[in-house]
Amino acid sequence: MDDPLVIFTPSGKRGRFPVGTPILTAARQLGVDLDSVCGGRGICSKCQITPSYGEFPKHGVTVAEGALNEWNSVEERYDRIRGLTKGRRLGCQATVQGDIVVDVPPESQVHKQVVRKRAEARDIIMDPAVKLFYVEVEEPDMHKPTGDLERLVEALDAQWELKDVKADLHILQVMQPILRKGAWKVTVAVHLGDEENPPRIMQLWPGYYDGTVYGMAVDLGSTTIAAHLCDLQSGEVVASSGLMNPQIRFGEDLMSRVSYAMMNPGGDKEMTHAVREGMNALFTQIAAEAAIDKALIVDVVMVCNPVMHHLLLGIDPFELGQAPFALGTSRALRLRADDLDLAIHQSARVYLLPCIAGHVGADAAAVALSEAPDKSQDLVLVVDVGTNAEILLGSKDGVLACSSPTGPAFEGAQISAGQRAAPGAIEGVEINPITKEPRFRVIGSDVWSDEAGFAEAVATTGITGICGSGIIEAIAEMRLAGIVDASGLIGSADQVGTPRCIADGRTHSYVLHDGSAEGGPLITVTNPDIRAIQMAKAALYSGARLLMDKLEVDTVDRVVLAGAFGAHISPKHAMVLGMIPDCEIEKVTSAGNAAGTGARIALLNRAARSEIEETVRQIHKVETAVEPRFQEHFVNASAIPNSVEPFPILNAVVDLPAVSFNSGEAEGGGRRRRRRG
Amino acid sequence: MDDPLVIFTPSGKRGRFPVGTPILTAARQLGVDLDSVCGGRGICSKCQITPSYGEFPKHGVTVAEGALNEWNSVEERYDRIRGLTKGRRLGCQATVQGDIVVDVPPESQVHKQVVRKRAEARDIIMDPAVKLFYVEVEEPDMHKPTGDLERLVEALDAQWELKDVKADLHILQVMQPILRKGAWKVTVAVHLGDEENPPRIMQLWPGYYDGTVYGMAVDLGSTTIAAHLCDLQSGEVVASSGLMNPQIRFGEDLMSRVSYAMMNPGGDKEMTHAVREGMNALFTQIAAEAAIDKALIVDVVMVCNPVMHHLLLGIDPFELGQAPFALGTSRALRLRADDLDLAIHQSARVYLLPCIAGHVGADAAAVALSEAPDKSQDLVLVVDVGTNAEILLGSKDGVLACSSPTGPAFEGAQISAGQRAAPGAIEGVEINPITKEPRFRVIGSDVWSDEAGFAEAVATTGITGICGSGIIEAIAEMRLAGIVDASGLIGSADQVGTPRCIADGRTHSYVLHDGSAEGGPLITVTNPDIRAIQMAKAALYSGARLLMDKLEVDTVDRVVLAGAFGAHISPKHAMVLGMIPDCEIEKVTSAGNAAGTGARIALLNRAARSEIEETVRQIHKVETAVEPRFQEHFVNASAIPNSVEPFPILNAVVDLPAVSFNSGEAEGGGRRRRRRG
Repeated sequence: MDDPLVIFTPSGKRGRFPVGTPILTAARQLGVDLDSVCGGRGICSKCQITPSYGEFPKHGVTVAEGALNEWNSVEERYDRIRGLTKGRRLGCQATVQGDIVVDVPPESQVHKQVVRKRAEARDIIMDPAVKLFYVEVEEPDMHKPTGDLERLVEALDAQWELKDVKADLHILQVMQPILRKGAWKVTVAVHLGDEENPPRIMQLWPGYYDGTVYGMAVDLGSTTIAAHLCDLQSGEVVASSGLMNPQIRFGEDLMSRVSYAMMNPGGDKEMTHAVREGMNALFTQIAAEAAIDKALIVDVVMVCNPVMHHLLLGIDPFELGQAPFALGTSRALRLRADDLDLAIHQSARVYLLPCIAGHVGADAAAVALSEAPDKSQDLVLVVDVGTNAEILLGSKDGVLACSSPTGPAFEGAQISAGQRAAPGAIEGVEINPITKEPRFRVIGSDVWSDEAGFAEAVATTGITGICGSGIIEAIAEMRLAGIVDASGLIGSADQVGTPRCIADGRTHSYVLHDGSAEGGPLITVTNPDIRAIQMAKAALYSGARLLMDKLEVDTVDRVVLAGAFGAHISPKHAMVLGMIPDCEIEKVTSAGNAAGTGARIALLNRAARSEIEETVRQIHKVETAVEPRFQEHFVNASAIPNSVEPFPILNAVVDLPAVSFNSGEAEGGGRRRRRRG
Repeated sequence: MDDPLVIFTPSGKRGRFPVGTPILTAARQLGVDLDSVCGGRGICSKCQITPSYGEFPKHGVTVAEGALNEWNSVEERYDRIRGLTKGRRLGCQATVQGDIVVDVPPESQVHKQVVRKRAEARDIIMDPAVKLFYVEVEEPDMHKPTGDLERLVEALDAQWELKDVKADLHILQVMQPILRKGAWKVTVAVHLGDEENPPRIMQLWPGYYDGTVYGMAVDLGSTTIAAHLCDLQSGEVVASSGLMNPQIRFGEDLMSRVSYAMMNPGGDKEMTHAVREGMNALFTQIAAEAAIDKALIVDVVMVCNPVMHHLLLGIDPFELGQAPFALGTSRALRLRADDLDLAIHQSARVYLLPCIAGHVGADAAAVALSEAPDKSQDLVLVVDVGTNAEILLGSKDGVLACSSPTGPAFEGAQISAGQRAAPGAIEGVEINPITKEPRFRVIGSDVWSDEAGFAEAVATTGITGICGSGIIEAIAEMRLAGIVDASGLIGSADQVGTPRCIADGRTHSYVLHDGSAEGGPLITVTNPDIRAIQMAKAALYSGARLLMDKLEVDTVDRVVLAGAFGAHISPKHAMVLGMIPDCEIEKVTSAGNAAGTGARIALLNRAARSEIEETVRQIHKVETAVEPRFQEHFVNASAIPNSVEPFPILNAVVDLPAVSFNSGEAEGGGRRRRRRG
């Protein structure tokens, strides 16, 4: 008679095994992804499985009652002490007795998927650089006088097929008592190695270690440092936090920091010290929040723009401030945490994603990893909006990249009533095209300003200014309501037909909110505000357009807005402004903090590291500063939405009033089409 | 017509090359070992060659006057500025014009041999881990935005075939200004990598760097730390020095240091700190002596016994103090100098040779590397004599190793008049077998004590005691003169027939020198002195004998005495004592500080590192402590020379009086044969 048939779900893998074969053994032989830290010794319980009984016509098999052995003492003890979910067995204890269908639940898969919902984005599959292994080590023998380390290394090879594992000195310094305390049974955290480094023992615990180890995914921005602490076994984000980049005191934007280093001898060292100190503070804070020992953080992935990258590494960013914008190094870096003065696990590793070019950093690489334009079937434009916009355009047939100096206007800087996105800031605006009256929402409340309960809702925060997404909506709505013309001029009260347009020097401003009665500010959109946004959005659009020229296309299939700011932009308003190319509005999506997500992917999945390195090598870089057409695109894109591009898809959805306030002639009463958008 | 023939000497390699081919190019194509740092740019002058003209019947060629081109401007400039030895040409500038014979002088060979005279020892061929390379780097280009490092790495690959070279962070921090200062021409010191590490840039200089880099070969002993500073291009020892191991304050011998660590919590850390501090002091002293910058020391090789090894690494030596004597690690270690707190080049590497067993350390491995018993045609016994004797026995057919606890008697400790080998110590002794009168030499003078001018010669040093080699000669001479019997007893004045035998408690002592008249010490050899030497030499002999048992041999073909002490032992006297097995006396040689030489070999020749690692894996280790026959051999070897071994070769050379003083019966007048040795 044939050996019993074992069928694993969800993989569908199947094979015949002799009666008595443990399910874990069968899984390994078939290459089924079933976790185990203790190697089948009934200690770790990572290999839990769910047997299914009855008829399975799909698999052509009937599973009888006794298809597995009875619960054994190991399972009974485990259930008594820690509880085994009903219907579950330990894969290393359950043995094959007859045909059986075995389901491997997600939490028992080594390469489990970390939940991520967006269909177009890359999945996060668990495959971290550091894993735990339980081993039993041969005791020393005078007649075979190998060192304890050599026998530990042999055990890792024999029991886990880990070849030629090395150990840092600090492991050697603690290893001998740990081996003896664990009676020659230890749990080992092993960094599995990479292109540059062999596998390496990171930590040792006597006996079976029932805990985990952690990694940190860091998005080091010019303004903020954000970090996610991840459990390297489950993939779960255990705690997240951010803090202001302490380098801000040396300059708000990147170029002012580069200047600081040029003007002040040792200034680069000061900034290096500041950012490393800030990062340590952030790590301490996050570890405290998660109530874990910082020394359990064994792996770190960082993404950042090139200037931050160089300052973090202690490289003077001087060369990045001038053509040809030569990076010290563009490739990915594999460092030790102590190279960066990080006070975490003493031989923790740090992986920095590669930089794409002198203006397109590891953060853009991380966006590419998260949004995977290189795997896209259709042509996607990915825009990471910040002080510098990083722009990726492409599909599986190839990806182009550039950056464009948008300046800080999108972040509310250089705007008269501008402020950072914080409670009290106007973030959403609508203007009635007939009455020219606005209504708005502020951060911290869902109530519109013309709805009941608004005054109460904003009582504590007040109405303090306009944030980046608010100014975009305000200007786009002003354009749609005929308050602003295509050239960006605000009409007078007479021209527009509303007292909200007030004279402001030689131009006009539009009053969005007058809080003076309550002692609050007068919040207006001024003509200089509009010019600042015009410059910023023209820079962004021209970069995208330049890449489209290179691909010889006039439209893109979809647009992904990345970055914290991108998450809050209304696609329709962005398109009315002409920030992004004409595209079906439902095809404009937000990816949130895609750079941070990219960092998390690289932290949890080793293969993603070499993959993004290869992708970055393949990306074609375009330097906007020396492209002759950039200037031409920029001039065209200064108009709202654009002086030459037709934007047919947008125009099919909204009516843009053909007003013009330049001549001083009132067109406020001119042709006005019904607004449909 | 055929292309001209180019014949290289001494290699004899030959080939035909088109007219105009540079000699360096021809050498490279033929695989001739011709050095070059600048890659043929006429800068470094490392490729100097000597053309030969005239008839060469041996090679079947006639070299005409114009076989090479005329001196060119590069050679003229070089000669003007730095001087070119008459008859020399630069291999990269001299081009083939006709058949030519080219001699490559030793200093132009990359893999030159470092002078070493002993035929039986391993040669030192230059192949250091760190080498210098001059490269021309592509300038940055906005349209191909790779980092400066990536272009430097490409240049190393394209111009020197160095694949995938990495750089430490500190290189990235200084690289950009250096590249620009050198106008994209730089000299790079590259660590060529090993089993664990990829090749790595260690240092950069703008333009052509006319200097060198250094390595340090360190012999870390329990008593002294000795180090040789070597030029890694020439192989030359630039400076050497030693200092007392500062750990001595924690215990004179190894076991007392292990005890110190056991008794005092943190004691191992103290000792680790002390030895690292001592090593830094020694490095500073040697660098000062050689007038070089310590930061130019880029590579270090260390050898030491297992306890020193563990204490240096910061591993508690606890386990080495008790069976089964488990080493923390036995394999070779590749560390960074800062792992050991060494203040030299900031990413200098340290290589520690492998340990053979818990009692047979990296110093014994270094002896094996230097003396190469594994390559010996005949059966060789290599003995490194110290507080512990490390013993190797074997030939190309296999090598055995053990250690034997000889104790400090051979170093003059535990001897009544014993002292370290220092001026004033008696180091050589002869005793007239008829008169029983001694004569001796002291360290610091070549004059024997019975020769004219002796008093003047020792006037400044005095006669202060007996060193290790002195006590061995004294006792052996006493045995030859019938003053001591085979059991180690000194006869009385009556028994021996000389007033120099004086009563000393219940036994007798022999007066070697009475300095009391001049206010100096009375120097005697006492019966306890003899017992101490008997224990030490019995331990040494039993270890060797045990290995001979394993190989089932009764004699060895030759004996190599290693170690500073070994260098001063008289082979005949050692054999009279029965320290070493019976052997032709001219076949007993000294290897000097073979461990230090082994360190120097591993420093200058990378291949020697993996080779000794393989050799050590092949060495069969014997643990004397648990070998039942060790005790039996020890008892037999306590007699002088041995109570059972016949020592036929020795007996053919010397007459050992058959005296016996045990019965209290005088045999002083007994049969006395003529002394021939």
